[in-house]
Amino acid sequence: MANKFATREEDYSQWYNDIVIKADLAEYSAVRGSMVIKPYGYSIWEKMQAVLDRKFKETGHENAYFPLFIPKSFFSKEASHVEGFAKECAVVTHYRLKTSDDGKEIVVDENAKLEEELIVRPTSETIIWDTYRRWIQSYRDLPLLINQWANVVRWEMRTRLFLRTAEFLWQEGHTAHATKEEALEETKKILNIYTDFAENWMAVPVLQGTKSPNERFAGAVETYCIEALMQDGKALQAGTSHFLGQNFAKAFDVKFLSKENKQEYVWATSWGVSTRLMGALIMSHSDDKGLVLPPKLASVQVVIVPIYKKQEQFNEISAKADEIKSQLEAKGIRVKYDNRDTHKPGFKFAEWEFKGVPLRIAIGPRDLENGTVEVARRDTLEKELFDVSDIANKIEHMLEQIQSNLYQKALDLRSDKTHKADSWEEFVDIIENKGGFVYAHWDGTAETEKKIKEETKATIRTIPLESKEEEGKCIYTGKPSKQRVVFARAY
Amino acid sequence: MANKFATREEDYSQWYNDIVIKADLAEYSAVRGSMVIKPYGYSIWEKMQAVLDRKFKETGHENAYFPLFIPKSFFSKEASHVEGFAKECAVVTHYRLKTSDDGKEIVVDENAKLEEELIVRPTSETIIWDTYRRWIQSYRDLPLLINQWANVVRWEMRTRLFLRTAEFLWQEGHTAHATKEEALEETKKILNIYTDFAENWMAVPVLQGTKSPNERFAGAVETYCIEALMQDGKALQAGTSHFLGQNFAKAFDVKFLSKENKQEYVWATSWGVSTRLMGALIMSHSDDKGLVLPPKLASVQVVIVPIYKKQEQFNEISAKADEIKSQLEAKGIRVKYDNRDTHKPGFKFAEWEFKGVPLRIAIGPRDLENGTVEVARRDTLEKELFDVSDIANKIEHMLEQIQSNLYQKALDLRSDKTHKADSWEEFVDIIENKGGFVYAHWDGTAETEKKIKEETKATIRTIPLESKEEEGKCIYTGKPSKQRVVFARAY
Repeated sequence: MANKFATREEDYSQWYNDIVIKADLAEYSAVRGSMVIKPYGYSIWEKMQAVLDRKFKETGHENAYFPLFIPKSFFSKEASHVEGFAKECAVVTHYRLKTSDDGKEIVVDENAKLEEELIVRPTSETIIWDTYRRWIQSYRDLPLLINQWANVVRWEMRTRLFLRTAEFLWQEGHTAHATKEEALEETKKILNIYTDFAENWMAVPVLQGTKSPNERFAGAVETYCIEALMQDGKALQAGTSHFLGQNFAKAFDVKFLSKENKQEYVWATSWGVSTRLMGALIMSHSDDKGLVLPPKLASVQVVIVPIYKKQEQFNEISAKADEIKSQLEAKGIRVKYDNRDTHKPGFKFAEWEFKGVPLRIAIGPRDLENGTVEVARRDTLEKELFDVSDIANKIEHMLEQIQSNLYQKALDLRSDKTHKADSWEEFVDIIENKGGFVYAHWDGTAETEKKIKEETKATIRTIPLESKEEEGKCIYTGKPSKQRVVFARAY
Repeated sequence: MANKFATREEDYSQWYNDIVIKADLAEYSAVRGSMVIKPYGYSIWEKMQAVLDRKFKETGHENAYFPLFIPKSFFSKEASHVEGFAKECAVVTHYRLKTSDDGKEIVVDENAKLEEELIVRPTSETIIWDTYRRWIQSYRDLPLLINQWANVVRWEMRTRLFLRTAEFLWQEGHTAHATKEEALEETKKILNIYTDFAENWMAVPVLQGTKSPNERFAGAVETYCIEALMQDGKALQAGTSHFLGQNFAKAFDVKFLSKENKQEYVWATSWGVSTRLMGALIMSHSDDKGLVLPPKLASVQVVIVPIYKKQEQFNEISAKADEIKSQLEAKGIRVKYDNRDTHKPGFKFAEWEFKGVPLRIAIGPRDLENGTVEVARRDTLEKELFDVSDIANKIEHMLEQIQSNLYQKALDLRSDKTHKADSWEEFVDIIENKGGFVYAHWDGTAETEKKIKEETKATIRTIPLESKEEEGKCIYTGKPSKQRVVFARAY
């Protein structure tokens, strides 16, 4: 922990990388672009999974599992989908290796070539809708509300831990409905689940909105999204929920017999969040002293560190620490008592601080005498002496405070970094010099969107749901516009 | 549900397949050898996962995630491992598709050929030990107790749902230790966890033992296993725990500085169970009326079916059903109230019976009058009138009875189908005509083992841990033997 690491000011990108690596969250593997999620990082992902999984189930969804491999031809069935997904992907062409003729190495057995190549799923709409064709006959089979937790692969040239990796973990929901209205309602229901999760669990405020046609999911009629803003003023798409219309039903010929006894195509949605959320979580709250975690997702919420010189002191302190641990655990608080005798308290303080544990309790001999403990908050770095009586209630309350403080800080940061631009000069100036979300008028064309991106690297992050109609002129072309959209540079 | 399906007597293999398909557990997909695990099947797998995951964590293990792809060269590093695993596997050779020159189809882009092929993991020892080299420097870094929940791919020519599929889901534990003793202890600890899970959760009795060198995991020094016996007298390997010695540490150069300040190779274990357990669960308990599930792993433990003619009756019955449901749920019992108005009670009875729900409660108008309900047990098919007072305690008790009854039935079946053979003729007769486990003397050579397999299709399932030393003669060669081993035909 004594190693120097980058500050946000010095090198934001290096700072992020240092936190991921040195807080033991993840690292690169021997396979280009693929990461290893280390136990501490995975424990946070598991917390995320548990919360989301519960929310999905509470709203009637069930989990299932579909194949990792998708026949190549499936991607051609939905015209726009193939453009978006079938290009940069891992292709399985053979199913056997053999020892080379000289016996020295292992080579691909050319006799074991697949008739049709298999694609490692970049997303599963195609294989799932091929399956749904068998599952759906009548309106009685609808709605079908299914989610899958899985790994997916998209061959990325530039990768960053959690934010963009060739293989990543995610959940993908795929639902089938009898009516357009019901499918649209589902799309929005999920968007609200994602929003609730981001704001109330991750403590990350998000904008809700739709994507411009250009940024839409390949195969979707409408893509809803939540967008978060990172400390460096760049946006991060944190989740998407797609209304797919009847596109995949038509591509895979999935019809149902309606109550009115007619054959109709099924309406679809799909939606997902991924280990990318880990990146958003890390970047939203962490500081120059390392990771900062919101208590609700921290796998260790409170760490207790004993401070002692003699073994006898250690025994007494441990008895007190165990007592406090039990009291906290009885309230459902996740506590670690760091009783390692291989490391000094200073090392432990620095380690847990760097790993973002929300609260640290230190107990020394004098604390035992006085009936106190020292409590340090990770978010504000403040220390306070607590009376051990009623410690559990106080800690519980403080964890809640930290959770809401982190959200408020992130919200304030977003407010500071949210601007309106009414001219091109103003727009460019903000994007170049301030960053953040820029609300600006846009003429609604893909062409203008593309040019703005070319000139500033800013993209339309979202057409916000909450934004009001407002007459204006496109900042780029001066053509009329009825609503501001949100631009930003993005991860 | 009215469709006829095979009985065990008629066609055991078809019977198994019918249950998997018609109880909505899984089905084949468009991808050869890959299955779709349907929501009902997946819900049982999730229960299994939850129990095992808790047991792993209680014994100090943490979850992590390692890459799906493994560089081809990694497999060559451990000599015997490559023979066992690198042969029948999915090979990724390219990372891009493109539109063909005539614009008509999607083809592999030959310009996007990987320098080194990637293998879709058939098991992860190699990529994990390549990672552990970076994680382990000193004895302070040990033990490393890590588990991964993941999908793996082994290119199987003959596949059967759950029992043998190209892609399957599993957990794989990979641990690193400072001493041989500690690694061996871990291997056995996990074997006991698997045994406890099989017997006390799945209600499947298992034999604990080691594998003969021939049947050992490729790269292991010793493979421990649990073996179950199915109703048709064939054995099924339900879980393995491997002591890997220093083989992988040497192959991937993973050394640590010992307390005595010496550089030493790390000791390793690996262990896993997979969705194959679903096959064992289904085959152990099910009957000619469909699936039978042990209550502890059933996602629905009790289904309540209303029997009514008029809407008014339905409302009254529903009020009572909801009341009973709440009482049961307060005890942690998983209950479904099947209030569908699209299906008749007879259909529902047959459906839930086929799906193996342990208890069915039927409530009709007369029950309302009399304060009773009809309770039907799936395992014995017995029906009984219960007074609704104290219903929750009675149901809870009955679920416990079913759990232990299923275990006892499976144990009795195993006893019936366990034999001793002291001559070759006897051995062949049992294998051919009775099936089951055969305890017999073996001369300890791979050659004899191979010949016995060629002649009878029976393999050594395990060298049982509980078996006593006993002088005897090999049933095949007549050479001396000191212990009986367990032969059977196997899945």
